[in-house]
Amino acid sequence: MDRIPILRMGDLLLVTIQVDMHDQLALALQDDLTEKIQATSARGVLIDISALDIVDSFIGRMIATISALARIMDATTVVVGMQPAVAITLVELGLNLTGVRTALDVERGMKLLQHTDAAP
Amino acid sequence: MDRIPILRMGDLLLVTIQVDMHDQLALALQDDLTEKIQATSARGVLIDISALDIVDSFIGRMIATISALARIMDATTVVVGMQPAVAITLVELGLNLTGVRTALDVERGMKLLQHTDAAP
Repeated sequence: MDRIPILRMGDLLLVTIQVDMHDQLALALQDDLTEKIQATSARGVLIDISALDIVDSFIGRMIATISALARIMDATTVVVGMQPAVAITLVELGLNLTGVRTALDVERGMKLLQHTDAAP
Repeated sequence: MDRIPILRMGDLLLVTIQVDMHDQLALALQDDLTEKIQATSARGVLIDISALDIVDSFIGRMIATISALARIMDATTVVVGMQPAVAITLVELGLNLTGVRTALDVERGMKLLQHTDAAP
């Protein structure tokens, strides 16, 4: 397992993070995602972290980086499925995910992105 | 990581298999999936295996079992994102996935399920 799959759904991309991230995997994901955003003209990126019980500052930074990357490629990132304990940890770590949108689950994330599209 | 996340998208459920399956994980997935089908009244189950480079007879049987379980709960299973090498292995193993529908990617799988719904 050396790549996290990125699923295309219309003009959205879905990334489900299930495994422990390490440097190389995170870098590969950033590369793949930027390429896929360009290739598919995706408007939004959904990152599902519902499988993660624990989030450290590394994951927190990775999410922030992906969000920043997507933003300059004109795509909005929404983090979905965050477990309560993870939210607590992130805030305790001082990672408030500023500029990163969140939603309770994939469905709400998709709705948020559809709404985001309608606004500007 | 002791559970594979099941994402709800409308009346479909999406399962992305990224990690090596073992007995307990497969059983937990079957339990979770049947519960989720009941809880969400899902019509279709998409199993994305694009992250799998290798598939053995265990995974093949698991997919067949999930498909059979879903069918008796009135949901259609579509396996999506199968890599060419995986298709070759499955056929070589004699696991032709009879009764399991397949699609090239999640988008086509979703279209297939929408179409399936329209038919009966």
